[in-house]
Amino acid sequence: MDSNWKNLRINEQRFKSDFDELCQIGKFGATGVSRPALSDAHSEARRWFHRKAREAGLITHIDGAGNHSARLECNRKGAKSLLMGSHLDSVPNGGRYDGALGVLAALEVLRSLKENNIPLAVNLEAIDFTDEEGILVSFLGSFAFSGKLTTEDLTNPRGNRLELENRLKQAGMSAEGILAARCDPGTLAGYLELHVEQGPLLEAQGVDIGIVSNISGISFYRLTYIGKAGHAGTISMQDRRDASQGSSAFTLAARQIVLEQFPECFSNVGVARYEPGLFNVIPEKAEIALEFRSAYMDQFTKLKSALLQRAEEEAARFNLGLNIEFLGQRIPVELDETMRHAILEASESLGLRSAPIISRAGHDAQAMADVCPTGMIFIPSVAGISHSPDELTHWQDCVNGANVLLQTALRIAISFS
Amino acid sequence: MDSNWKNLRINEQRFKSDFDELCQIGKFGATGVSRPALSDAHSEARRWFHRKAREAGLITHIDGAGNHSARLECNRKGAKSLLMGSHLDSVPNGGRYDGALGVLAALEVLRSLKENNIPLAVNLEAIDFTDEEGILVSFLGSFAFSGKLTTEDLTNPRGNRLELENRLKQAGMSAEGILAARCDPGTLAGYLELHVEQGPLLEAQGVDIGIVSNISGISFYRLTYIGKAGHAGTISMQDRRDASQGSSAFTLAARQIVLEQFPECFSNVGVARYEPGLFNVIPEKAEIALEFRSAYMDQFTKLKSALLQRAEEEAARFNLGLNIEFLGQRIPVELDETMRHAILEASESLGLRSAPIISRAGHDAQAMADVCPTGMIFIPSVAGISHSPDELTHWQDCVNGANVLLQTALRIAISFS
Repeated sequence: MDSNWKNLRINEQRFKSDFDELCQIGKFGATGVSRPALSDAHSEARRWFHRKAREAGLITHIDGAGNHSARLECNRKGAKSLLMGSHLDSVPNGGRYDGALGVLAALEVLRSLKENNIPLAVNLEAIDFTDEEGILVSFLGSFAFSGKLTTEDLTNPRGNRLELENRLKQAGMSAEGILAARCDPGTLAGYLELHVEQGPLLEAQGVDIGIVSNISGISFYRLTYIGKAGHAGTISMQDRRDASQGSSAFTLAARQIVLEQFPECFSNVGVARYEPGLFNVIPEKAEIALEFRSAYMDQFTKLKSALLQRAEEEAARFNLGLNIEFLGQRIPVELDETMRHAILEASESLGLRSAPIISRAGHDAQAMADVCPTGMIFIPSVAGISHSPDELTHWQDCVNGANVLLQTALRIAISFS
Repeated sequence: MDSNWKNLRINEQRFKSDFDELCQIGKFGATGVSRPALSDAHSEARRWFHRKAREAGLITHIDGAGNHSARLECNRKGAKSLLMGSHLDSVPNGGRYDGALGVLAALEVLRSLKENNIPLAVNLEAIDFTDEEGILVSFLGSFAFSGKLTTEDLTNPRGNRLELENRLKQAGMSAEGILAARCDPGTLAGYLELHVEQGPLLEAQGVDIGIVSNISGISFYRLTYIGKAGHAGTISMQDRRDASQGSSAFTLAARQIVLEQFPECFSNVGVARYEPGLFNVIPEKAEIALEFRSAYMDQFTKLKSALLQRAEEEAARFNLGLNIEFLGQRIPVELDETMRHAILEASESLGLRSAPIISRAGHDAQAMADVCPTGMIFIPSVAGISHSPDELTHWQDCVNGANVLLQTALRIAISFS
């Protein structure tokens, strides 16, 4: 392979025309996209993706977890596959870039390589993972593919179980099929994902390309403080066991713990609910939803201990019971050095300013990092807005991201030749 | 009138038999009663009350607010009426004594006086007020009767408006009729109410009869802290405007303010709800329900100021907006001196131990105190349990209470002769 490949770029016009077409599927308002996993709009987007792939002469495939891929095979026997992708589903009432851009860019990379007859030592595959946004099962597609999904995840999902069953049925999917979608890591050359940052850092720093070094781990818990209900006008204030006091004290403390002891970390109490939930009855139960994030395993573990210990202390302080339910986690991962270096070289070759960045949001790359060398490319999100119709990434940044993906993929492919 | 009246007692057997019959209406489990206002069970209880009254030769009446009464008229022209009563409705899944006992005792007093041919200078009326428990409109019947009810209370009720409309329609009631139920205070000699304490004090102190000196005022507010939603993994902890912080800080502070500055008062935050209410989104809104109580007007006003000022301070501290919605109140009342003295004398004449007590719960007497001399008699609640099928008052205490009601009514009646 001569060095002409260094001048190869994606077809900007085709990329833009694809983007505009895809934005119509599940469109609402001027800039909104609503394609919840396995909804009609999502299924239509996936059919559109496969049609585009076939029109370009690529091989299409759907695995048991519903992951849709398009494949450009090399002529070398037993060659490994370099995967590139993201997800076509969106949060309900979300934006145009999150996930979709990574799948479109991967498709465009395959087409550009195919039409330029670039000889490769690896197969290339553009993949759309199922339910990244987790309205059914968090990371259904990439967890199934990377072998992390358990039967329990399907029988006791984070979302509504009945809705999961209905959507799977509609999509012709089954629990058996999903669990059988597990890949053979030996066949994988790596995984590359282009994604919008969903945060404000790249834009604020004037950086074109974020080279993701780490993806934060995240844990989900339900905490229920348990006191004793009673008439709010007759039981003395001293004698109350008021569940709201424990949950409120913890909600304040969780923020303080992160600010003071874990300044690089994040926590959130996004849900609160009291029982019986009446004006004139002392809350018997106060249920809150806790999540916390850290990019480093050691810190993640310490943060968890600090938060859960404090949760217990607040229960004791107010003479309450406490029920701690662990609802799942994704552990922090560090992305592959070789991949990061290839992204850096690709950015430099394109004259783009790059910087390492930690991903605070979760991504399919987090699942893939367990089974193969994984790299992730971020491009700026205007004002950091995410999961909103107002989500915006300037088009030039999208083109830059797709070209970095192309040039990174070529560098990895060459390393296998 | 000779002094034989001092030996008059209610008919215990009839009183018990009535009690047992009434407990069957809306009964659930062994000791539960569920008669929400204007439900079928409640309407049946009211029909039962009127049938019993007519069987005893009393005159029955229903006013525009659905208040059911039974009347024993004296033969003096232009005589005033001494009302005695409470309410036959219960909270959903409540107990047997709350409200019902006061109506039964009033009926029994009328029958005892009638059959003993006690000549009186006032008319006596046993009254069952509509919806005391306030599942439709708080104190619908006694507020209408005492002229406190407004059109607004009916068009924007604390409960569900559609349910109110349906229940009124079923009961053949109208807004016009309700507002026209206003009494002429000039016709009233007073109001007496027998009720279970719903608190633990009388039992703990070994007191037979509580002479209510004051009924606590109560205020209802909805407080909404307003911040900014955002991705809980990408927006820095320092930059967040997290509505949960304001509501949690206030929930803790409200208790501390009462404990430290208003030790005789009560407050409760019984409801909390965050928006959008998702694990991974910073709460944009945190809505809480606040109620607080004080027995004295001056203290009530100071408590309100202290709580609402602190609510504002917590909003400022966390850089949040705050929306304060006033949802209604019942101001504290002091009950009539003459009535209290008559209850004391009646108790002493019966050899019962009495003590003054403050009512922390609201009662129809609170509305009536505005329009006529009002007295209230409490009897012990075992363990203070209230609004529960486990609510219990020993039968001897019920008999004691009814006899105190009888002897108090006689003393008041005599004062008019």
